[in-house]
Amino acid sequence: MTSKPMDDLTRDRFLGGRLELWQPRRGYRAGVDPVLLAAAVNTKPGQSVLDMGCGVGAAALCLGRRVADLSLTGLEIQPDYAALARRNADENAIPFEVIEGDLASMPAPLRARQFDHVIMNPPYFDRATGTAAEEASREIALGGPTPLSLWIEQAARRLAPRGFLHVIQRADRLPDLLTAAQAGLGSLRLLPLIPRPGRDSQLVILRARKGGRAAFRLHAGLVLHDSASHDGDRENYSETIRSVLRDGAALPFPR
Amino acid sequence: MTSKPMDDLTRDRFLGGRLELWQPRRGYRAGVDPVLLAAAVNTKPGQSVLDMGCGVGAAALCLGRRVADLSLTGLEIQPDYAALARRNADENAIPFEVIEGDLASMPAPLRARQFDHVIMNPPYFDRATGTAAEEASREIALGGPTPLSLWIEQAARRLAPRGFLHVIQRADRLPDLLTAAQAGLGSLRLLPLIPRPGRDSQLVILRARKGGRAAFRLHAGLVLHDSASHDGDRENYSETIRSVLRDGAALPFPR
Repeated sequence: MTSKPMDDLTRDRFLGGRLELWQPRRGYRAGVDPVLLAAAVNTKPGQSVLDMGCGVGAAALCLGRRVADLSLTGLEIQPDYAALARRNADENAIPFEVIEGDLASMPAPLRARQFDHVIMNPPYFDRATGTAAEEASREIALGGPTPLSLWIEQAARRLAPRGFLHVIQRADRLPDLLTAAQAGLGSLRLLPLIPRPGRDSQLVILRARKGGRAAFRLHAGLVLHDSASHDGDRENYSETIRSVLRDGAALPFPR
Repeated sequence: MTSKPMDDLTRDRFLGGRLELWQPRRGYRAGVDPVLLAAAVNTKPGQSVLDMGCGVGAAALCLGRRVADLSLTGLEIQPDYAALARRNADENAIPFEVIEGDLASMPAPLRARQFDHVIMNPPYFDRATGTAAEEASREIALGGPTPLSLWIEQAARRLAPRGFLHVIQRADRLPDLLTAAQAGLGSLRLLPLIPRPGRDSQLVILRARKGGRAAFRLHAGLVLHDSASHDGDRENYSETIRSVLRDGAALPFPR
């Protein structure tokens, strides 16, 4: 007898224990990516934020822990993940409205609203393990991936004028990401994340602004791990990244 | 009485004096960009190279100085620049066929040919000076800039199967550059050039391959000036860059 993935949960500490999140042991699991994404968002208290494809709520709840009085909303296609996101919001006492639905046919309650910020960590489509997809994620796999361009297009629609989009995505999707963002948004700024000095970037964070007219900016890569730490200690983050992951600090874009 | 720009020339040393180039005192002048471009090209002796928009021939002739037995061809729309390119090839004793013409209506002799490499340093459309365009460049300015997408499209047509394109371009054109390159080429690799540690990239070198199927790679930024040199010495290049500019060394892409 096999257990359904949502019966087999772990409770994981984020931000040095400031946040604890239930998530399925198998299938998609939040790692450092949504934490870095949340740290990079330039929200001010009182603003509204939509987390598109919020999963168990990692990015939105990290953001809610760092910035006070946000109006946080999540959109999640998979009911089991949406339920976990609500539970995580509840247990961490962070107000977070989670709406079940498909971004490809935006639910009516969201269609009527606009947000100061949209954040997203779209699927990367590579499984950490080579095993077959878990039940909960099979639906998405079978339905075919939503193209990145549609994620960006829908985000642009949900943004208020002058609102900001932040996306974290694998570096090898950069051409698709910039093509899509350029089509509907402006003032693009790219922050490459570099695992170690001199290595290829594996992840990028893109900031874009609705109605923005500033020239594209390519920032210097942000190094995640110190070069001196190549001795098997995989947790040896740089000081900046450590303060983001363990102390819940912001990760400001360059001026 | 004003002199025409092509009557007022300078003769400038490149690659530590290994190359000397005539160029107009005013209007577009080759600086370090074509030298860096030429250094990044992975040519082997005996291969063919097309320099699209070759100007006075700086990139092609730098490449010809570094790699033996190349078959070098240049395309240049402005007759005065084409003439200087021929003179420069001659005086430096580097075989270089220069064809006058517009890449938007590719000259017949080029339409019939394919090349192992195409290199280009398309116009950046910002003048170093705020003065009115010189006579020679007015024609282009009045004709409207050729879109970057057309440069890339025409390069792709001139490439032999598995041939390489190398482009140097301002970093703020990156979305346009990647969108265009993605459309007709593959195996894109981007090398950002960073003026000093932590600063925004101002220039990028893109490598793309005709028929390539490898994932996009975003390399760590290459720092041009050492951080310790912020004391007004603008010529204080890093060792890698110095050996490119002064010794004619290659600038290999990361493995």
